[in-house]
Amino acid sequence: MKKNLVVIGYGGMGTWHTQHALKSDVVNLAGVYDINPEKNKLAEERGIFAYDSYEAVLADEKVDLITVAIPNDSHKEVVIRALEAGKNVICEKPVSMDSAELDEMIAASEKSGKLFSVHQNRRFDVDFLAMKQIKQSGELGELINIESRIHGSRGIPSDWRGEKEHGGGMLLDWGVHLIDQILFMMPSAKIKSVYADIKNVLHEEVDDYFKIILKMDNGITAHIELSTYILEYQPRWLVAGDKGTLIVKNFGCEGNIYRTGKMLEKLPPQITETEAGPTRQFAPVPPGGIITEKLPEIETDWVDFYRNVIDVLNGRAESLIKISEVRRVLAVMQAAWESANTNKAILFE
Amino acid sequence: MKKNLVVIGYGGMGTWHTQHALKSDVVNLAGVYDINPEKNKLAEERGIFAYDSYEAVLADEKVDLITVAIPNDSHKEVVIRALEAGKNVICEKPVSMDSAELDEMIAASEKSGKLFSVHQNRRFDVDFLAMKQIKQSGELGELINIESRIHGSRGIPSDWRGEKEHGGGMLLDWGVHLIDQILFMMPSAKIKSVYADIKNVLHEEVDDYFKIILKMDNGITAHIELSTYILEYQPRWLVAGDKGTLIVKNFGCEGNIYRTGKMLEKLPPQITETEAGPTRQFAPVPPGGIITEKLPEIETDWVDFYRNVIDVLNGRAESLIKISEVRRVLAVMQAAWESANTNKAILFE
Repeated sequence: MKKNLVVIGYGGMGTWHTQHALKSDVVNLAGVYDINPEKNKLAEERGIFAYDSYEAVLADEKVDLITVAIPNDSHKEVVIRALEAGKNVICEKPVSMDSAELDEMIAASEKSGKLFSVHQNRRFDVDFLAMKQIKQSGELGELINIESRIHGSRGIPSDWRGEKEHGGGMLLDWGVHLIDQILFMMPSAKIKSVYADIKNVLHEEVDDYFKIILKMDNGITAHIELSTYILEYQPRWLVAGDKGTLIVKNFGCEGNIYRTGKMLEKLPPQITETEAGPTRQFAPVPPGGIITEKLPEIETDWVDFYRNVIDVLNGRAESLIKISEVRRVLAVMQAAWESANTNKAILFE
Repeated sequence: MKKNLVVIGYGGMGTWHTQHALKSDVVNLAGVYDINPEKNKLAEERGIFAYDSYEAVLADEKVDLITVAIPNDSHKEVVIRALEAGKNVICEKPVSMDSAELDEMIAASEKSGKLFSVHQNRRFDVDFLAMKQIKQSGELGELINIESRIHGSRGIPSDWRGEKEHGGGMLLDWGVHLIDQILFMMPSAKIKSVYADIKNVLHEEVDDYFKIILKMDNGITAHIELSTYILEYQPRWLVAGDKGTLIVKNFGCEGNIYRTGKMLEKLPPQITETEAGPTRQFAPVPPGGIITEKLPEIETDWVDFYRNVIDVLNGRAESLIKISEVRRVLAVMQAAWESANTNKAILFE
């Protein structure tokens, strides 16, 4: 039997959840609730039942699962009330403003015995999955660098994401995804240090640029970056190993794998004469020196997120998104803030 | 009257100096000397006088200027002997293995009253000059990020640059240029912190990858990177300000300036639906949203380096390359090593 879902918050992500839930084979959209009556009216115009109050949602016995898609600073109270009312809860990311808040939510979940998970949806993006698949295939050899970069030119959305008190800013909004992806793809690697540069470039109130360097104990250095003003977007992913390089250009699967059987000095020497001196090392590679392959086509289905939640509720699976992982990402974000504020690297784990 | 130049060391860079000196209107190539007799023979076959010994060079009264182009660990002794013999000296970069060695060389220079300068030739490269000109024009607005990246796929040259005892490795070989360029273009900015990741990827003995993050007190963060194995080369320069972005693709002048009169939310909203969620911020920019201009053609003449040296000798100019600048670059390199070895950021200046 399908589980009955209510979505709290009918903004951007709340709408996304309802749209996909309606199409889904695993949940039944029982309704929505937003503190803004106009949003509830909009939902009803679209044929979705809107509750009168959050209390009414919590009191409705048929509701199995609540998805919380409201500003970040309101997550804690709404999640805890749902858990206390015996509901299973999915919370939008970032789950909380800091790990102390999260710990309160975890305690409520443990007390209630109900599911508490977080919508780390970017684990289902094709760019990430393509990168992860190629990483795991070993065809790039021993990995050295992973660059995860997102560049935009529109600044911060003109909603609560631009407001500090509501948990706005790009590190909370996107950093949580980009850090999660890195840690998720190599769960057994420990983080040696966190170094960050976080800036307010076009937005006074909240951060709209960050670069985070994670040195991992498996020898990989991850470079995570987001800007809202770099007008020539750089590749979404650059992954380099000692046997090849991967570029994923954007959120799709465009990009290439670059390999050479002639790594190192076996490439024929070629000298580039710049105005100020020769360079043999950094001369262009002659034709045929590097072999280029397209990326594999990746199948992904975001509804797998809800399928997993339902399987967990039915005792058939473990949660794809573990709270311990979510907590670790929050701790990295806090270390990033500390690093940016002190200009120091933060030793970690 | 032209000054008489002798080049010590007839390897890669020594040969470069002789070739350009021969064409030059400012110096007369009096000869070369290499400790390897075969190199001296090769020079003579090419019509260049080769001295029998370094003592013979130093004893030759007509020699005004000595350019030292030998492995890094031999610079100090050879430079100091030249200064003590009353010769003016240009030393190849990196001038020394550390700043203590440099201080000995500076003391010898001060005692002798002779010129002592360093061949920071990459200040004359067109990619750098194009970037510097656009930076200074102000058309990118307030600068936020400068990325200076060099990627190669040939590993380390198979000469002393692969040997630790001779001062090999990419940080000494190229880091010295890349750091110098950053500091030279904004001489009044202080460095707040140095953070580095330095690796041995394909070469056991010496470093063949580095990333250095310099946070400057003018708000700019510089990201300096070199690899010898990343097979898809990233842009040589990425410079981003709050009004535009510059890309210089390679050692030439290929690249673009990207600007928009519609920075921020004034760009028409456009939503990209990825598999796992929508993004308005990081959607592609609609046609016409970003204006692209080609880079200016840059004139550069590396012989200006020697012209300046001669002007300095004739009391008509200050040295383009100041020893205080060279010393600062060395200090940054030492901080980079310390950072890489400790995983800490080094507070600086």
